[in-house]
This record gives sequence, structure tokens and C-alpha cells, in this order.
Amino acid sequence: MRNLRKMAQTADKHGLVYRPHFKTHQSAAVADWHRELGIRRITVSSLQMAAYFASHGWEDITVAFPVNLREMATINQLAGKINLQLVAESAYSLARLQEELSSPVRIYLKTDTGYHRTGIAAVDTDTFDRLLALLEGAPLLHFAGFLAHAGHSYSARNRGEILLRHEEALSAMQALEARYRSRYPDMVLSLGDTPTMSHAQHFGPINEIRPGNLLFYDLMQVQIGSCSHQDIAVAMACPVVAKHPDRQEIVLYGGGVHFSKEQMMLDGHPCFGLPVQLQEDGRWSSPLAGSYMKKLSQEHGILHASPALMQSLQPGDLIGILPVHSCMTADCMGRYLSLEGSWLEMMPRY
Amino acid sequence: MRNLRKMAQTADKHGLVYRPHFKTHQSAAVADWHRELGIRRITVSSLQMAAYFASHGWEDITVAFPVNLREMATINQLAGKINLQLVAESAYSLARLQEELSSPVRIYLKTDTGYHRTGIAAVDTDTFDRLLALLEGAPLLHFAGFLAHAGHSYSARNRGEILLRHEEALSAMQALEARYRSRYPDMVLSLGDTPTMSHAQHFGPINEIRPGNLLFYDLMQVQIGSCSHQDIAVAMACPVVAKHPDRQEIVLYGGGVHFSKEQMMLDGHPCFGLPVQLQEDGRWSSPLAGSYMKKLSQEHGILHASPALMQSLQPGDLIGILPVHSCMTADCMGRYLSLEGSWLEMMPRY
Repeated sequence: MRNLRKMAQTADKHGLVYRPHFKTHQSAAVADWHRELGIRRITVSSLQMAAYFASHGWEDITVAFPVNLREMATINQLAGKINLQLVAESAYSLARLQEELSSPVRIYLKTDTGYHRTGIAAVDTDTFDRLLALLEGAPLLHFAGFLAHAGHSYSARNRGEILLRHEEALSAMQALEARYRSRYPDMVLSLGDTPTMSHAQHFGPINEIRPGNLLFYDLMQVQIGSCSHQDIAVAMACPVVAKHPDRQEIVLYGGGVHFSKEQMMLDGHPCFGLPVQLQEDGRWSSPLAGSYMKKLSQEHGILHASPALMQSLQPGDLIGILPVHSCMTADCMGRYLSLEGSWLEMMPRY
Repeated sequence: MRNLRKMAQTADKHGLVYRPHFKTHQSAAVADWHRELGIRRITVSSLQMAAYFASHGWEDITVAFPVNLREMATINQLAGKINLQLVAESAYSLARLQEELSSPVRIYLKTDTGYHRTGIAAVDTDTFDRLLALLEGAPLLHFAGFLAHAGHSYSARNRGEILLRHEEALSAMQALEARYRSRYPDMVLSLGDTPTMSHAQHFGPINEIRPGNLLFYDLMQVQIGSCSHQDIAVAMACPVVAKHPDRQEIVLYGGGVHFSKEQMMLDGHPCFGLPVQLQEDGRWSSPLAGSYMKKLSQEHGILHASPALMQSLQPGDLIGILPVHSCMTADCMGRYLSLEGSWLEMMPRY
């Protein structure tokens, strides 16, 4: 809630719409925490997720993923019922949408501000002009604006580098602002990613922000420089199943099917998580010095354990593990245990 | 079915019990295919999985994972109902089991033949002697035998290297055979792993084999040298959502939440899957030359595409992707579409 409130305050201060990305938690129960802060507009990464949150009363949803034309039935169901924003980046997809839609939708043009994963290069105004002309001739498609994800901020390693990526994204979006605002006074410039949103103090022409991960944060975000360990809001409780003091290893029931196999380099070795002491009140300690998850297989987690940790744990004990990538870990587990001890359900797999 | 029959024939020929590892598929429907071949004894990697298959009529189950003492309720439920084999490697766990069990179980001592993930080093006969003495004094714990997993075969890169790892495992198990068989004439020497089981032509003192992955195989097993691409029995159907011909990339709806983030090095670059052409009959082609999955994020898959593949695909088309690690991919997806077009359900997440 602290992470969430901080972001909501930043958005308020800068007059931005805060449209959080719900792919991080995928949970109607966690979504309700957002309602308490007055949040009504959300982002998701699949039509399945849009349908799930729509069924829980969310009525303004952006699917921030290039539209999947194989899901026209879901698109049409949702478009007739909620404010649905889709993302497109090709004339082909726009033409197919116009042909197969039964209700109007709003379309963001996916804009590449330097990440080079998806989208039209922000400087490629010829393509934007061409797609905007198509949109104007397509009665069921309304131009929503330009949507970018500065995902290259994930390669940053401190606040300065993060802010540099943010400035690049802002200046790319500023060029679109200058070129198109007068023609489309209501267009939305939408930007999302946890590292830059965690630090940015100005947002140039941006109207809307869509960070997701900052709800939970994780070890990767600590490494990038977005947050500190104290900001991480999820931990996995792993049972100890075996000890190997001769090689300083504790075997945990906690493997790739629980954490996903997301890894990072830490102090020169691969790291799959950091141990913390779980407390009676559901909270946990800072990471325990000298210990880290060194290997995962399908169900096994191998914890490199300090002598003190080795001494203190027996099979059947629980240890907390902070995840490298909280979104992926949450997706694997499929539900949460809250600090109050209740289960928070997530979107079913299908 | 061809993969399965081949393994069953090898087991028959060598007088081995074939106790397949069901963590690979986690599906009662796929389990039924095994029944048709007369298989009645199975391996799983968690008590949750044991309970799931027990509820589908499987009555002889080995949980090939160091016993999780936090699940005594499930253990006691199962032990009163089916033939349950558990795996232990410490005096502590054996003592706790004896104290908290309500029905007898059979106990395998986890044996490390060189993988160094879990288990007691095969040469550490002092520890085995000590644990066997504990078992003899524990009326609810019956010694089942020695169970090993030659997981270091996964670092092999051809048939010769695989067979070398197999010989190491056999000679470690042979020493236990020589030392303990006369005292425990019914003990089972159990060995499992897909690479060695795919090639081994003799099994020394081994009584039982437990491969799992060979049901599906995957790109990692091709790289190890266990199988060929033609043996891979699962593929993911991924929708095309965007094309970037300028950088030879196609964006697929197929990311880390679908494949897991398991990767391998192929021709000097990271590879997360290989594309195949899906056919009308549900089958697929050989891998398409010059193309590979180069990057995954949560929902996006980035396919490096040959010019021919780039030309042939449009948003909304489907392409098949052979997974790097089929067990992890199956676990992410939660169900299968069979060649006949029916859904095969898997174990629920909880």
C-alpha cells in the first residue's frame, strides 16, 4: 500500500492519470486495494486478463500488448460492455479490426522510444501519418494516443541511468506531442515502466503512467536502482527439506515451477532469490547476509547458506525468499497469503 | 506414445520396473496412456502431485523429492490408502516421520551418484549404516532401497558423454548393491533421468528406472543428445501479433508466463524455442531453418525470423514453437490440446 500510495501521489502532483498495470498481481482482491485509492482505469497484458478484471467490475481497461487478432470474440464481448483500449502498430491489424469489430474501441499506436521490443520508432512519422489516416477512415476505431514502454530502463543500474532513459523517452514523446497535439487535442501520451516511474520528477508531455511491478518490487528492481529491499512487498515461504553443511547448501521446496527461472547476477554469481527470516506477524527481515539462492530445478531450490543460517534451520522449517522477478513468481504461484493470513485469489489459468 | 513404448520395451528387455516420473505431464489424462501399457507404479515430485494421482486411481507412488515434513497430514492420508514411498536423507527427517506417521511408509535413502544436488554421497557408507539402523528401529518406516538421479547427465552433449555419466552412476550403485543386498534382499536400486535412460544398453544392479521428460522430450534433450527433433512430442501454438522486418523480428504472444524462462545456448546465441509449421492434422514440421526465439518477456516472445518466414506470416497467424524445457512449459500452461483436438487437463495449481 505504501508503494501504491507513493505512486498515486506522484501522479496527482503532476496531473497524470495513474493507470496501473495489473499483470503484476493478476488478482481481483489486490485490485480492490487500488479502488480504495480512487483508481478506476487499469492496464493489462492480455485479453484474458481484461475479461477477468471486467468480470470484477473494472470498466476502463487498456490491453498494453499488440492486439491478438485471434481473440476477436473476446474483443467484441468487451468492447460492447466497457471502455476498451487496444494497441496496434500495423495497417494490417487495423484493417482486420475494422472489419471484424462489432463495437467501437479506442486504439493506441504502439510507440518505440528506444526499447526495440515492439512498436513504431517514435521518429517514423511517415508510418504514424499513414496509420492515423487509416484510423480516420475506420468508423469503429478511435485514435486514443501514443503508448510507449521504456523497457530499456531495465538495463539501468542506478538512479542516474534510469533518469537518462526517462529523458530519452520524454523527448521522443515530446516530438509526437509537437507534431500531433493540435490535430488530436484529446490524445493521450501514455508511458509505463517501474524504474523511471519510481524516480521521475517531471513528465514533460506525458498524460498517463502505467507502472505495474512497483506494487511489489523485487530483487531485480533493487539491482536496477528503483527501490530498496525494504520496499519489496512479496516473499515466498519455502520449506527446508535437506541440509548439506559440507557444501554450505540447504535444499528448499521452491523451484522453477514456483519462482520461474528468472535469474540475475549478484556479486559475480547467478542469484535466484535472497533469504529473509519470516516473522510471526507475516512480515519479514532484511536479506540475511552471506546467503542466496544459487540454483533452481523444477521443484528444488538450492540455497547457499551462511554457517549461522545452516545452524538455525532444520528440515520442516520455513524460510522466506525474496524473488528476482515478482510478476513471474506471482504468476507461477496463482494466489497470495496476505499479512492477515487470508488467501487472495488470482486469475484462473484458463 | 512412441517415446513411451520404446522406454517400456527397454525396461522389459532388462527386467526393470519402469516407474515413469509424472512431474513432466502432471495430467490424469496423459497418465491413462501409461495404464494402457500396463504401467501401475509411478513417480512424482510433490505430495500435492501424489494426492492428485492417488485421486485418479494410482495406488503405488514414489515421491522422489526429500520429504517435506510440513505436509504430514497429506502423508498420513496417502499412507493409509496407497503404497507410498518417500525419500529421506537425514536422521532428523526419519525421526520426525516415525514420530508423526499414523500408517507405515516405505523409505528410499536418497543417494548422490555425482550430481551433488541432494542425497548422501554413495561412498558415505557410515551415514547409510547409521540411517539403516534408525530405520530398523522405526516400526512405521520400511527400508525401500537406494534412489538416485544422475542429473549431471544434463551437462552431457553427446551419446558418449551420456553413457559415461551412466557408468559412473552404475558403479556407485554397484558398491551399494555389494554392501547391502545380502542384508536387504528386497531392496530396490532406483535410477532416473532422461539422457541416460534414452541410450543405456545395460543397467548393472539397477532394479527400477524413473525417467519423466522422455515422454515429451524437448530442445534441451536434443542438445544433450538424448533424442532428435522428431521425438519432441509437445509444441506451443503462438499467435503472431507484430512484425519488424527491419530487424528480422516477429513478435509472438508467447512469453515467460507460457514457456517459463528456460533458455539454452544455440549456435552462440541464447535460444528460448524453435519455430515449426503447424499442420492441419495437429502435427508439425521440422524446425524452420534460420529462425529461433531470441528473447522472452512476461507475455512477449521475440522470434528471429528468416526472410521466408517473415514473408509468410501475418498478425493473427499461428506458429508452433518447440520448447527448451517441456516439463516447465507444460507446468506454465496447465493443459494440453491433443492431436485429436481435445483438452487434456492437468493437476490444478492448488
